[in-house]
Amino acid sequence: MTSSVVSLSEYLAAQASRIDAALDRLLPAESEPPETIHRAMRYSVFAGGKRIRPILCLEAGRTVAGADEEGIEEVACSLELIHTYSLIHDDLPALDNDDLRRGRPTSHKVFGEAMAILAGDALLTYAFEVLARAGSAALVGELARAAGTVGGMIAGQVHDIEGESQPPSAELLERIHRAKTGALLRCSLRLGAMHAGATAGQLEALSRFGEHIGLAFQIVDDILDVTQTSEQLGKTAGKDAAQHKITFPAVHGLEASRRMAAEQRTLAHEALSVFGDRALRLRQLADLIVDRSS
Amino acid sequence: MTSSVVSLSEYLAAQASRIDAALDRLLPAESEPPETIHRAMRYSVFAGGKRIRPILCLEAGRTVAGADEEGIEEVACSLELIHTYSLIHDDLPALDNDDLRRGRPTSHKVFGEAMAILAGDALLTYAFEVLARAGSAALVGELARAAGTVGGMIAGQVHDIEGESQPPSAELLERIHRAKTGALLRCSLRLGAMHAGATAGQLEALSRFGEHIGLAFQIVDDILDVTQTSEQLGKTAGKDAAQHKITFPAVHGLEASRRMAAEQRTLAHEALSVFGDRALRLRQLADLIVDRSS
Repeated sequence: MTSSVVSLSEYLAAQASRIDAALDRLLPAESEPPETIHRAMRYSVFAGGKRIRPILCLEAGRTVAGADEEGIEEVACSLELIHTYSLIHDDLPALDNDDLRRGRPTSHKVFGEAMAILAGDALLTYAFEVLARAGSAALVGELARAAGTVGGMIAGQVHDIEGESQPPSAELLERIHRAKTGALLRCSLRLGAMHAGATAGQLEALSRFGEHIGLAFQIVDDILDVTQTSEQLGKTAGKDAAQHKITFPAVHGLEASRRMAAEQRTLAHEALSVFGDRALRLRQLADLIVDRSS
Repeated sequence: MTSSVVSLSEYLAAQASRIDAALDRLLPAESEPPETIHRAMRYSVFAGGKRIRPILCLEAGRTVAGADEEGIEEVACSLELIHTYSLIHDDLPALDNDDLRRGRPTSHKVFGEAMAILAGDALLTYAFEVLARAGSAALVGELARAAGTVGGMIAGQVHDIEGESQPPSAELLERIHRAKTGALLRCSLRLGAMHAGATAGQLEALSRFGEHIGLAFQIVDDILDVTQTSEQLGKTAGKDAAQHKITFPAVHGLEASRRMAAEQRTLAHEALSVFGDRALRLRQLADLIVDRSS
């Protein structure tokens, strides 16, 4: 598949189906006992996610090595498993208490709270099992840190919960999102790059790219929560304001937020300069993340 | 430290302090932001656990290699982190709804439900980070499987929840506990053995030992829930019956359960025969697990 002759939408569809097929191959079958937990895991994994993290991982690997290395599907899928676990737990009554996710009832609405907690635990655990099959201990450590409490995804979640009772500030806002969304997006690029044998310079460039699109992603997410309906979003709109979450529009206003997203896109593009034309798809993916807001 | 001159209780105290010190060194400090999650993680990790899993891991390594290999503390601690996460999530209102654990209020009673869910997630994630520092991808895969949904700890938890609405049977009971408690105990021995470079025969022998003490452990746990007070247990007694859990005393009666525990102890001892005198401590640990019930 040459990038110059395949349109972006065809590329995205092909990548997403490839990831879907790999996830289907890797996850325990619904008929595998205990059936309930495997049904719950698959319910959330196959809920219409766009597979942004695994696609970034695959593409980072290709940008470095020019082709897919063996085992890269396991690496890419581990990111989607972690992402899905975080959504299931975030949606729980004790956390964001969301009934709707991607237009469907959330895990605890379908399987009950106990099973939703366990399904999240199971996907988190399984992410490391899958990654260990293909990766090295170094990749496992990288993913665990990105998902963890020191600048990682759980840190962002805690800052987010505690931020509800603090005065909104630009600094707190950025700290939340660097951790909450940014760390895993950055990790998606790093795992792909490391698996492909990136040099220190290449890894650094892709990490910076990941940081900028991570921030852009969250700014756009916050904007969409204000400007779109629940139907358009596939989840409850306006929840950020209702829950007094610190958001980019709340801190900076809608127009400034849009400018900030565009700025992060530019910085993301610049980070890729070392790769020249090989980074075409990564540039397009950055554009896609920002243009969701249009 | 020569095993012949150090009493079992001194040995246990020394091993437990060593694990406590390693956990203290490995876990993020309470002052590391976000402070709340690190306080919650440490609250449950340092709640008076006996460190049975890490001690089994250390001892399996010594039984194989005659001494401690570098990195074994990380391997041993990863097991305690996984065990602690499972206790925090098991105690949640949606699961066992326990207010008391080891004589202290459970995590969600102290930190709230959201933070308890995240603290469990964080310890699970951190277990793999710590293991990845010392271990190989093979050890990571081994731990993830033992903690997972196919015959692992989460499978046991699901069988346990679903078992409450099923007629109790000896078969279901054993399936629950092989997964719920057995898999992680067995894994404790396997990780120590693998880290120490065990032969296939040694690994197999220690796995069988782990299976037998795992079953013994759970039988004794079920017996204690019936025969001891909440004060003696440090947790709510009689909960199994109240929650219609399938237990060994409920299925087999108290006396037969005691005989079964003794039988598992004998089988555990027999599994160690290939190691001769080097397995003295492991034999003593098996005895200790069974004799808790006296």
